[in-house]
Amino acid sequence: MARKKTSPATEASPEVPVQGRDRETLGKLAKLADRVVDAAAKERDPHLDVPSRSLTNAHYNRRKRFIEMGDRTNRRELFNLNQARIYMQTLLAGSGCSRLIRQGKSTSIRGLYYLLKHTIEGTKEETFNDQMESDAVIEDLEVIVGAIREELHLAAENRGAMVGLLQFNDSGDDIDCSRLGSGGYSIPSIVEPNRIQFKKCQAKFILHVEKGTVWQRFNEDKFWRKHQCILTHGGGQPPRGVRRLLYRMHHELNLPVYCLLDNDPWGYYIYSVLKQGSINLAFESQRMAIPEAKYVGLRSFDYDRCDLQSNVTIKLNDQDRKRAIQIAKYPWFADKKPWQAEIKKMLDNGFKLEVESLVSKDISYVSETYVPERLAAKDWLD
Amino acid sequence: MARKKTSPATEASPEVPVQGRDRETLGKLAKLADRVVDAAAKERDPHLDVPSRSLTNAHYNRRKRFIEMGDRTNRRELFNLNQARIYMQTLLAGSGCSRLIRQGKSTSIRGLYYLLKHTIEGTKEETFNDQMESDAVIEDLEVIVGAIREELHLAAENRGAMVGLLQFNDSGDDIDCSRLGSGGYSIPSIVEPNRIQFKKCQAKFILHVEKGTVWQRFNEDKFWRKHQCILTHGGGQPPRGVRRLLYRMHHELNLPVYCLLDNDPWGYYIYSVLKQGSINLAFESQRMAIPEAKYVGLRSFDYDRCDLQSNVTIKLNDQDRKRAIQIAKYPWFADKKPWQAEIKKMLDNGFKLEVESLVSKDISYVSETYVPERLAAKDWLD
Repeated sequence: MARKKTSPATEASPEVPVQGRDRETLGKLAKLADRVVDAAAKERDPHLDVPSRSLTNAHYNRRKRFIEMGDRTNRRELFNLNQARIYMQTLLAGSGCSRLIRQGKSTSIRGLYYLLKHTIEGTKEETFNDQMESDAVIEDLEVIVGAIREELHLAAENRGAMVGLLQFNDSGDDIDCSRLGSGGYSIPSIVEPNRIQFKKCQAKFILHVEKGTVWQRFNEDKFWRKHQCILTHGGGQPPRGVRRLLYRMHHELNLPVYCLLDNDPWGYYIYSVLKQGSINLAFESQRMAIPEAKYVGLRSFDYDRCDLQSNVTIKLNDQDRKRAIQIAKYPWFADKKPWQAEIKKMLDNGFKLEVESLVSKDISYVSETYVPERLAAKDWLD
Repeated sequence: MARKKTSPATEASPEVPVQGRDRETLGKLAKLADRVVDAAAKERDPHLDVPSRSLTNAHYNRRKRFIEMGDRTNRRELFNLNQARIYMQTLLAGSGCSRLIRQGKSTSIRGLYYLLKHTIEGTKEETFNDQMESDAVIEDLEVIVGAIREELHLAAENRGAMVGLLQFNDSGDDIDCSRLGSGGYSIPSIVEPNRIQFKKCQAKFILHVEKGTVWQRFNEDKFWRKHQCILTHGGGQPPRGVRRLLYRMHHELNLPVYCLLDNDPWGYYIYSVLKQGSINLAFESQRMAIPEAKYVGLRSFDYDRCDLQSNVTIKLNDQDRKRAIQIAKYPWFADKKPWQAEIKKMLDNGFKLEVESLVSKDISYVSETYVPERLAAKDWLD
């Protein structure tokens, strides 16, 4: 399995003109490299101050109403045996992303790992032993340079779809989301302004549903045309591309976001992440969290209110109970009486309810009765 | 948790005119119900002969080159205590699908479960105890009436995307797949001719890639424009909608299908299912399998041929070895020397290779060198 040569990439994609936000990001990455040179020129030891990504450095900002990172940083020095490796890895990742931007290309975090992985000349040392190492360094890089990974040209697996009264340009193509049939627009991982520019929007709000199968119901019933909206789904926990697109549409098009999720701890959690961000990726919240998002998902009180049958309920398991109790304590739910009542009622019920359970009323009850009624009455959780 | 009333669906979606294939399927479902009436009229015990879905009743047809069901059937009688429940469930599912078709609506298999689940009047008996019961009955129903579930208006979670030189109509909307930006068309679960009609195709072949992130690379490099093709992915093991769409494009548009998959047992298996169908769902093969599909995925010989570095290899684990040996024995691989050499070489190598590992050569090596060279040289596995 040994191979003699350790030649680096033999072919190289040509560079392209860099514009707009890409230019800005490239500048930030260049500064990172300059710091090393500066330090050397001043005969100081090169170092990086990396904002701490530990859980204790993430907190809920009550004014901004999302999770953000604190001010704590960790210093990484080149001439420190314990830190030299990660210092070099960080610069290597920065240089890799800079190359991607200059080539006008993007890749996955797995792709970047392969791009950067090589045996350091004259040693048996690998730049990265596994993808976990490079993934962590990418998260560092995001906070050091103040750019989300999508701006660094790093894409994730894409998931989720969109239809509705929106026209936009994606990479040179004009797309009319009201003319995309039953399939819809496949939401890409990178939805930054250098790719996607909104053109014409006749929608008055966004309905985001949890699952593709429920999305299909709303699309089949042309809900978005009747109610003048945009319809999205994220295939469960929405991937970054979907969250970022919702964020952009909410802010740039001034559209309220309503979330149709299951009445279970997982549905609560999806809502929580869409609204307040996640603790693990606190840095992204400022570019992804939508504190104004509303929950129009199934509620524990709907069992009575919608006159559902006991045979469509699903018994809570221990894990569900544990998660529900944890979620009730999240600072953004803790002081909200309606949320406390909702979660308590679910625990009292002893069961959860899926959006699909409304099919037991009628195939289109959810799209033609449930959601329209909730929206008309402004009957949602916040 | 008990509820007094056991009222069925209170609201009912109106019926719509039924045309084309839907009409045909509805006729098949009606016949199913007629048999009960006929039997009663003739004073015979009603029964259903259900083609056996057991593994021993699925075999590889060497002439057709896909897995098909044998002739064995199991008889289910209404007046047989052991069979009465499943007999009734089958008719119930048939009546549910018939209702969906008449309403012009579709739902997920989970949705159908909720639609059909109720407490039988005057008893504590549930029509279905869990979704496993209704899922099995759906598979029976498909083979009994000779219609795939998509024709019964049952959708699965959708996954996968498409771009390329193809124009088609989806549910009344004209869609040009060469103008869908970085996102592309989200491939729906139901792609039957009553939804999707092909209009204009300038593509000469289809490149199907395993993962969305690799698809993004090919789309970013506008591979489909340079090479006049259609580009699809299925987010791993392609879902039914993607397989059925590939099948239709292959047969109706006369396009060869090339599959770019990882050099590992999972990649071999994905190819095997695309090409020959799966044993578990042998009935679907005739509507989904593409025996002419070619494998242009990574090969064990590529390690040397592409001069890859040892640090991009991933060690085979015991499970990988076991699966590779199983796959080598599949009847459609067993008599093919190139496949035997390929699998043997992987086992000898002791490692697997992902498509993404080609990034170590250059970010666009896969789209600008690897695949074009393989296609030009007709260098693929069959």
